[in-house]
Amino acid sequence: MDAAVFSLEMKVRDYECDMQGIVNNAVYQNYLEWARHEYLLSRGLSFAELTGQGVIIVITRAELDYRLSLQAGDSFEVTVKASHPSRVRLVFEQEIRRQPTAELMLEARITATAVNQRKRPYFPDELKALL
Amino acid sequence: MDAAVFSLEMKVRDYECDMQGIVNNAVYQNYLEWARHEYLLSRGLSFAELTGQGVIIVITRAELDYRLSLQAGDSFEVTVKASHPSRVRLVFEQEIRRQPTAELMLEARITATAVNQRKRPYFPDELKALL
Amino acid sequence: MDAAVFSLEMKVRDYECDMQGIVNNAVYQNYLEWARHEYLLSRGLSFAELTGQGVIIVITRAELDYRLSLQAGDSFEVTVKASHPSRVRLVFEQEIRRQPTAELMLEARITATAVNQRKRPYFPDELKALL
Amino acid sequence: MDAAVFSLEMKVRDYECDMQGIVNNAVYQNYLEWARHEYLLSRGLSFAELTGQGVIIVITRAELDYRLSLQAGDSFEVTVKASHPSRVRLVFEQEIRRQPTAELMLEARITATAVNQRKRPYFPDELKALL
Repeated sequence: MDAAVFSLEMKVRDYECDMQGIVNNAVYQNYLEWARHEYLLSRGLSFAELTGQGVIIVITRAELDYRLSLQAGDSFEVTVKASHPSRVRLVFEQEIRRQPTAELMLEARITATAVNQRKRPYFPDELKALL
Repeated sequence: MDAAVFSLEMKVRDYECDMQGIVNNAVYQNYLEWARHEYLLSRGLSFAELTGQGVIIVITRAELDYRLSLQAGDSFEVTVKASHPSRVRLVFEQEIRRQPTAELMLEARITATAVNQRKRPYFPDELKALL
Repeated sequence: MDAAVFSLEMKVRDYECDMQGIVNNAVYQNYLEWARHEYLLSRGLSFAELTGQGVIIVITRAELDYRLSLQAGDSFEVTVKASHPSRVRLVFEQEIRRQPTAELMLEARITATAVNQRKRPYFPDELKALL
Repeated sequence: MDAAVFSLEMKVRDYECDMQGIVNNAVYQNYLEWARHEYLLSRGLSFAELTGQGVIIVITRAELDYRLSLQAGDSFEVTVKASHPSRVRLVFEQEIRRQPTAELMLEARITATAVNQRKRPYFPDELKALL
C-alpha cells in the first residue's frame, strides 16, 4: 500500500493553548489522532463503529518532531499518509503545516496495530479497505 | 445590547468521547468557550490579544442544562447570544443543536466579567465593541 | 439521604492552565467529576464498572459559581455532598477550596440521573448503596 | 549529569479514558509532562515561574513506546531520568509502570531545549540547578 496523502484543515482553539500561550504538546496528538480517524472515515471506516464491534486499534509507537509552535488564531493542515510495512502493523506518516504559509510545525510517525481479545496483534479484515 | 445570534458549526472529535461513548460533560464547556471566542473575533476582539494586553475576562457563573448526549460522528451548531444586563457583567446565552436535525442537546447561560489588576470587576473599553 | 461530606485532595497540574495562567473553566468540571467518582468508589461503586454493566449515569444540570481562580502550584480540596431529592434524581453539592487556607474557589450543584436503554430516567438498584 | 531517578505516583481519572475504556494516547503526554514539572520542582525550579520570567522550555522531540494500556482505576508510577547530552539539549527518559505490580505500560524519551526571544535554542542559567 502506498496511499495518497489525506489532508484535514483545522484551527487552534484557545483552550488548547497553555500558560506559554502556545498549543500544549499533548494536544498535537489529539490533532494527529483526529486526522487519522477522519482519514479512516474517508475510507468508509468509523473508529467508533470498529470499537463497538470489538476491533481495537492501538498505537504502539509515536515519534513526534516538534519544529515550531502553533498559537491561538492559527489555521493549519494535518496530513496522513498510511503504509502497511509488516503483516500486523500500520504506519501513519503525518505532518502539521501552518496555513496559508505551509510552514512545517510538526512531523510524526505513528505505528498502530489491532489487538484481539487476548491482546495479541493481528490485522482484522475490516482494515483491508485501507490497503 | 440585544445582539443577533452568532453561530458556529463544529463536529465531535473521537478523543472528546469518554468511556460511555458520548462526549464528556466537561468538553461542552470547551465547545461553548470556543464559540464565544469566535463570536468575539467576529466583533474584532481576540481573546488571546486581550489577555496579552492584560484584559482578563473571567467566567463567574455557568449554568448548563444537558438535554441529549452528542456522540462520535455528530455535527452540531453552537450559538451565542450576548447581553449586558448590568454595568460589569456580560451574559452569554448559548445552545448546542445536533445537525442537520437541530435537536437541542444543551442550553447554557454563562456570566462573565473582566477583572482589573486588583481582581475587581470592571467593564474595559476594549469590550465596548460588543455593545 | 443526607450524606456526610466526602473530600478529595488534588493539585493543579500545569497542563490544566490556559493562556491566562489559570486553570481553564472546563477543567473544574473534570475535578468535580473525578471527586464524584471517588466518592462513588468510597461507597463501593465504580463508575467504570457501572458503565460496563449498562448503568448509564448522566448529568442533567450543572451550576458552577466561580469565585477565585486556581493557579499552577495550587493544592486544593474538592468536596461532595450527595442528596436524593426526587425519585430519579441525585444532586451533588460540591465545593473547591484552595489549601491550606480553605479559600472558596468554586461552588457547584450537579444534578444527575441514570437512563435506561430507552433513554428514560430511572433509579437503578445499584445506586441504592448511596442512600 | 546523570541524575538519580525521580518518581511520581498517580492514578487514572475516569475522564482520561476514551471510548475504548482505556487512557487516551494523548493523555500519557500529560502524565509525562506533569512528572517532569514535578521533577523540576523537586530541584527548586517552577515551570510556571520560569515561563513568567521568559524562560521558554520547549519539547523538540517525543518518542513514546506504548506497551500496555492503563485503565480506569489503575494506579501507576511515572519516572523521570534527566540527562544533558549536548550544550543546549535536555533529554528525559521516562517510564510509566502500573502499580503495585510495576508492569511497564509506556517508555518515553523526551528531548527539550530552551528558546530565547529570537526562538534560538540556548541553555539558560536558571536550568543549571539540574546539572
